[in-house]
Amino acid sequence: MIRFNCDYSEGAHPRVLKKLIETNLEQTPGYGEDEYCEKAAQLIKDECKRQDIDVHFLVGGTQTNLTVVSAALRPHQGVISASTGHVNVHESGAIEATGHKVLAIASPDGKLTAEQIQTAYNDHFNDATCEHMVQPKLVYISQSTELGSIYTKAELTAISETCWKNDLILYIDGARLGSALCAENNDLSLHDIAQLCDAFYIGGTKNGILFGEALVICNNRLNEDFRYLMKQKGGLLAKGRLLGVQYLALFEDGLFYEMASHENKMAMLIKDACIAKGYGFLTPSTTNQQFPIIPDEVLKELEKDFEYAYIQRINESTSAVRFCTSWATNKDDVDKLVAAIQIA
Amino acid sequence: MIRFNCDYSEGAHPRVLKKLIETNLEQTPGYGEDEYCEKAAQLIKDECKRQDIDVHFLVGGTQTNLTVVSAALRPHQGVISASTGHVNVHESGAIEATGHKVLAIASPDGKLTAEQIQTAYNDHFNDATCEHMVQPKLVYISQSTELGSIYTKAELTAISETCWKNDLILYIDGARLGSALCAENNDLSLHDIAQLCDAFYIGGTKNGILFGEALVICNNRLNEDFRYLMKQKGGLLAKGRLLGVQYLALFEDGLFYEMASHENKMAMLIKDACIAKGYGFLTPSTTNQQFPIIPDEVLKELEKDFEYAYIQRINESTSAVRFCTSWATNKDDVDKLVAAIQIA
Amino acid sequence: MIRFNCDYSEGAHPRVLKKLIETNLEQTPGYGEDEYCEKAAQLIKDECKRQDIDVHFLVGGTQTNLTVVSAALRPHQGVISASTGHVNVHESGAIEATGHKVLAIASPDGKLTAEQIQTAYNDHFNDATCEHMVQPKLVYISQSTELGSIYTKAELTAISETCWKNDLILYIDGARLGSALCAENNDLSLHDIAQLCDAFYIGGTKNGILFGEALVICNNRLNEDFRYLMKQKGGLLAKGRLLGVQYLALFEDGLFYEMASHENKMAMLIKDACIAKGYGFLTPSTTNQQFPIIPDEVLKELEKDFEYAYIQRINESTSAVRFCTSWATNKDDVDKLVAAIQIA
Amino acid sequence: MIRFNCDYSEGAHPRVLKKLIETNLEQTPGYGEDEYCEKAAQLIKDECKRQDIDVHFLVGGTQTNLTVVSAALRPHQGVISASTGHVNVHESGAIEATGHKVLAIASPDGKLTAEQIQTAYNDHFNDATCEHMVQPKLVYISQSTELGSIYTKAELTAISETCWKNDLILYIDGARLGSALCAENNDLSLHDIAQLCDAFYIGGTKNGILFGEALVICNNRLNEDFRYLMKQKGGLLAKGRLLGVQYLALFEDGLFYEMASHENKMAMLIKDACIAKGYGFLTPSTTNQQFPIIPDEVLKELEKDFEYAYIQRINESTSAVRFCTSWATNKDDVDKLVAAIQIA
Repeated sequence: MIRFNCDYSEGAHPRVLKKLIETNLEQTPGYGEDEYCEKAAQLIKDECKRQDIDVHFLVGGTQTNLTVVSAALRPHQGVISASTGHVNVHESGAIEATGHKVLAIASPDGKLTAEQIQTAYNDHFNDATCEHMVQPKLVYISQSTELGSIYTKAELTAISETCWKNDLILYIDGARLGSALCAENNDLSLHDIAQLCDAFYIGGTKNGILFGEALVICNNRLNEDFRYLMKQKGGLLAKGRLLGVQYLALFEDGLFYEMASHENKMAMLIKDACIAKGYGFLTPSTTNQQFPIIPDEVLKELEKDFEYAYIQRINESTSAVRFCTSWATNKDDVDKLVAAIQIA
Repeated sequence: MIRFNCDYSEGAHPRVLKKLIETNLEQTPGYGEDEYCEKAAQLIKDECKRQDIDVHFLVGGTQTNLTVVSAALRPHQGVISASTGHVNVHESGAIEATGHKVLAIASPDGKLTAEQIQTAYNDHFNDATCEHMVQPKLVYISQSTELGSIYTKAELTAISETCWKNDLILYIDGARLGSALCAENNDLSLHDIAQLCDAFYIGGTKNGILFGEALVICNNRLNEDFRYLMKQKGGLLAKGRLLGVQYLALFEDGLFYEMASHENKMAMLIKDACIAKGYGFLTPSTTNQQFPIIPDEVLKELEKDFEYAYIQRINESTSAVRFCTSWATNKDDVDKLVAAIQIA
Repeated sequence: MIRFNCDYSEGAHPRVLKKLIETNLEQTPGYGEDEYCEKAAQLIKDECKRQDIDVHFLVGGTQTNLTVVSAALRPHQGVISASTGHVNVHESGAIEATGHKVLAIASPDGKLTAEQIQTAYNDHFNDATCEHMVQPKLVYISQSTELGSIYTKAELTAISETCWKNDLILYIDGARLGSALCAENNDLSLHDIAQLCDAFYIGGTKNGILFGEALVICNNRLNEDFRYLMKQKGGLLAKGRLLGVQYLALFEDGLFYEMASHENKMAMLIKDACIAKGYGFLTPSTTNQQFPIIPDEVLKELEKDFEYAYIQRINESTSAVRFCTSWATNKDDVDKLVAAIQIA
Repeated sequence: MIRFNCDYSEGAHPRVLKKLIETNLEQTPGYGEDEYCEKAAQLIKDECKRQDIDVHFLVGGTQTNLTVVSAALRPHQGVISASTGHVNVHESGAIEATGHKVLAIASPDGKLTAEQIQTAYNDHFNDATCEHMVQPKLVYISQSTELGSIYTKAELTAISETCWKNDLILYIDGARLGSALCAENNDLSLHDIAQLCDAFYIGGTKNGILFGEALVICNNRLNEDFRYLMKQKGGLLAKGRLLGVQYLALFEDGLFYEMASHENKMAMLIKDACIAKGYGFLTPSTTNQQFPIIPDEVLKELEKDFEYAYIQRINESTSAVRFCTSWATNKDDVDKLVAAIQIA
């Protein structure tokens, strides 16, 4: 069985492992106050071309999201998110468990628009009884989104300006930021992103390390006492240098982009096979998640050899599914899937 | 200016006030452990024809809702509600502040159906990754709803059976239960309601007392340690007997129904005037809230003398608004409004 | 049975009730946005000799405390309190339920000192691992305290300066502020208090109204979006004008002080009787709560006719108890208690 | 500089790393639903000699503690803990952030007694106003404690019986359980522990793996929907098999005990050196944390070459400090420290 169901089926890239092994017996301070974390943070600052930002390393995405939201919001404030946003559907109520409502906005492609955000803002503040409703304050978007789509520079700039104008906090979930940055139609750099939002994270778990997300806080006000929050939410790793070491491996020689490019390339092969077969897609995606709409009888064949994620029924005989590639996805395995699609 | 914008513009019915005055100087234990609360609870048990239920008196509806939800749910469980439900839109995130997500279901008339509840349940538990999502556990409905509609006995029975079958808790927000029970097309009694749900409250604030909601817990498991929760959420009134005294006034001689019938009658006059004028309605309502759709230029005339609640724009020249009557609504005032509608 | 166990056994002063009755049928906006609340707030501002403060009316003390703490603190910040503080022991974990730790400091007389606060602050920030501990941020004190003692102007000034210097928020629970202000050894005015702290409340429930606490926010930053928090916590009374009307009655002609003076006078009679009998006290108190230490066999006699609150065992034959007076405490009843103490 | 300040200065034991490397490229399901987690859980069940228990793997201790407490308690219930308990002092309010109060009991040696627990229970339930106070429900103890002490089988049995009798949940923080199990005076086995408590965790982070804690739930009721809670709190690791793989390495051939024995042996050398020098100890400890009381001038010498943790001032010229050993502590380094103590 070959797994295309998600992008965290394997361990870490050998160069990442190597660095962990090399540093294994060194003694360092705990909780991320070691030199590896410092160096990795510096590399990220350089990559973002901003020295005035703060970098924190956390273990996972849900943890990062809930810690940022908890640090950023007062109790009556909520999170604007696409209805498909990870915080809205796939975190078991993590945001609500910190006391905050997710104000979901319907979105067919997983993206929010500046207009939608402005409307949500206006709808709240123009209402005479707004004190009786959750105040929108933080805008959560994902790059790439949960449906594989990405924001263009123009779109993100428009969102950023809307947030700035209305004193909204813009936070980007970058669990799959690598794949987004390396997408063929991407026109955003890490520098752009660091200029346009208040905070974002550079996902490691889904891009070739054992675990880890690098949270970048671009708006200094959000950074105040942030480590207290990390500790409180269980997100301050004792042997924190493990995160620093891994991010060092990601950014010291471009491995981060190398792996993301690979997974995108593998995903495009699958995409092309589906297009050739005439299959439609739930959403257009140039990243490592592909959501083709495939006849159920074909799926029945495919699932003999391949794992995929079932997304939703489209009509009585076809379904949308997800094929996901990773840094470790093997070209041979993709070829097998492509062949299976072709003959189906 | 005559107020039809809400049903809490005035104080309490004179018979309620009288009882408060008569008992004012008596010394009683605090926190609802007095004989007035006991007697009022007994009257409610009798009215529900169930002696095995528990009654608690709280000050307001939001407080009651958040205390019930907090007492009933574990942290990963959420509240199924119509998207128009008070807990979803008008409690400033009170439910989320206790850690729970509201799982909103779109509903044009403010009501949920048994089918919708079953579907939400199935959608969750049939998903292989359900652990990553909030588990639906408590079903919140309002009677009458926020849009003035009411559930029939058949509808409530179907919902109750669906909840029972799936181990879901059924809770009814009865802020306007009086109006619902006295609606011309109502076929539910307090006894029925106490049989069909796990908990509900009998609203007092919006039916002629100064303040107060009588929470009836029909499922004994929900009652465990409930008073701890009331205290923790700030809902245990020191001079708790004020609630008991007022509910005594409501139920010892039918004042509760008397007032609700009056407000419904007044609402029907407004409704008839709108119908006569050919106005449509946002939703059909036989209770004390009427949601006619009225030309903006007519509204401009009406608002010279009358307060109403603006609900939403329907098209460029008409809007849905709410007229609300109360126990204290004056027939003369209604006549003036009716006349104003007629000549508009 | 005559109740001296607490100060909320009776209803409201007749002049308070009268005002409620007079205004009962008026129509006003809900949720405290009426002219009575506005007028009462103005009277309080005048009484505090500060026009730049904000006044909110809430129903009860626990609710007020938890709403203030929730509005003022970020998630990693805690409340410094005397171990006897109401928020530490008698609110069923209301503060923790909003996510915050109470950092309790042992205090024999219910009071904190400026030194204790400074030490708690230093202990935290001088610790290299302070990020792993709850950050002290809000100082909670009660005036009068839960043990009947009061802060002098010098003491409160020292605390205020310590808080100011360390960017700590000073909040005073004034459930029994009336009794404190009218104590024979008091040297603080409402104006002083409004100058020295960030927020405090003027207790009504325990000083002659049906229910209600007037929260005064002296530090404007704490007032931002405060009404959202009130709504979220279930503390925004629908018929909010009931609170305004009652506070109007309290402050338009000095009734607030009149009642507090009365209850203190009654308490002093009980105190004198105990002193005459040679009984010691748990703490010295000049306010409406007296904590004499009385032989158990005497208590056994007294409890035939009088209710008191049992506090704690002192040794095998004596116990500390609480006698509490209220605005409604009858001189005749006190005389009976005094006589009973004398002959015991 | 040689670090004795904590037990998480180094990475993982080479045999642990080796297993991670060997399995690195395998594809497995995510979130702990892989065969490595299953096998590791089975080894732990075997080690506990109980097949009816549940094992979950989490990343860190604070996360494990807060998830267990959140899963186990209703909102009004609290955690009984020694005042020195990790949950009380060193988790930045993690427990409170889930809504629960820590009911701290003073303890000079870091241990609770069955009597203290019974008293806390009685004090609560014997109080007529117990509904106004946090209800004690979960007893948190650490083995070894934060002060290095350990519970004997008799002590733990007495605590267990007290908890059982009073329907209290007994939870053991086993961050340093390995060191406790291998202490010279230990008479408890994993089987005993699994019989005596409702839940405990077997610490990995502080015993030779990169990260990870194995939570063992002995009381099935606590296990209901536990994975929802793990996800909600950010504790469900995407590449969950990393935890399974590491625990497999710990328990397949006794490495867990091997490493704990080593660190204890190293600690005893330091202890003996201190005793030989005539230094007292904050508490007696037979585990990997030693708390000698040392003259400040000696400390000044030691800190030129060695890192230790400063604990507290004892008098004007001596302080209690902590020396901590780990699986990786080098005998040579210990010899250097011992020599430095001897000549000081």
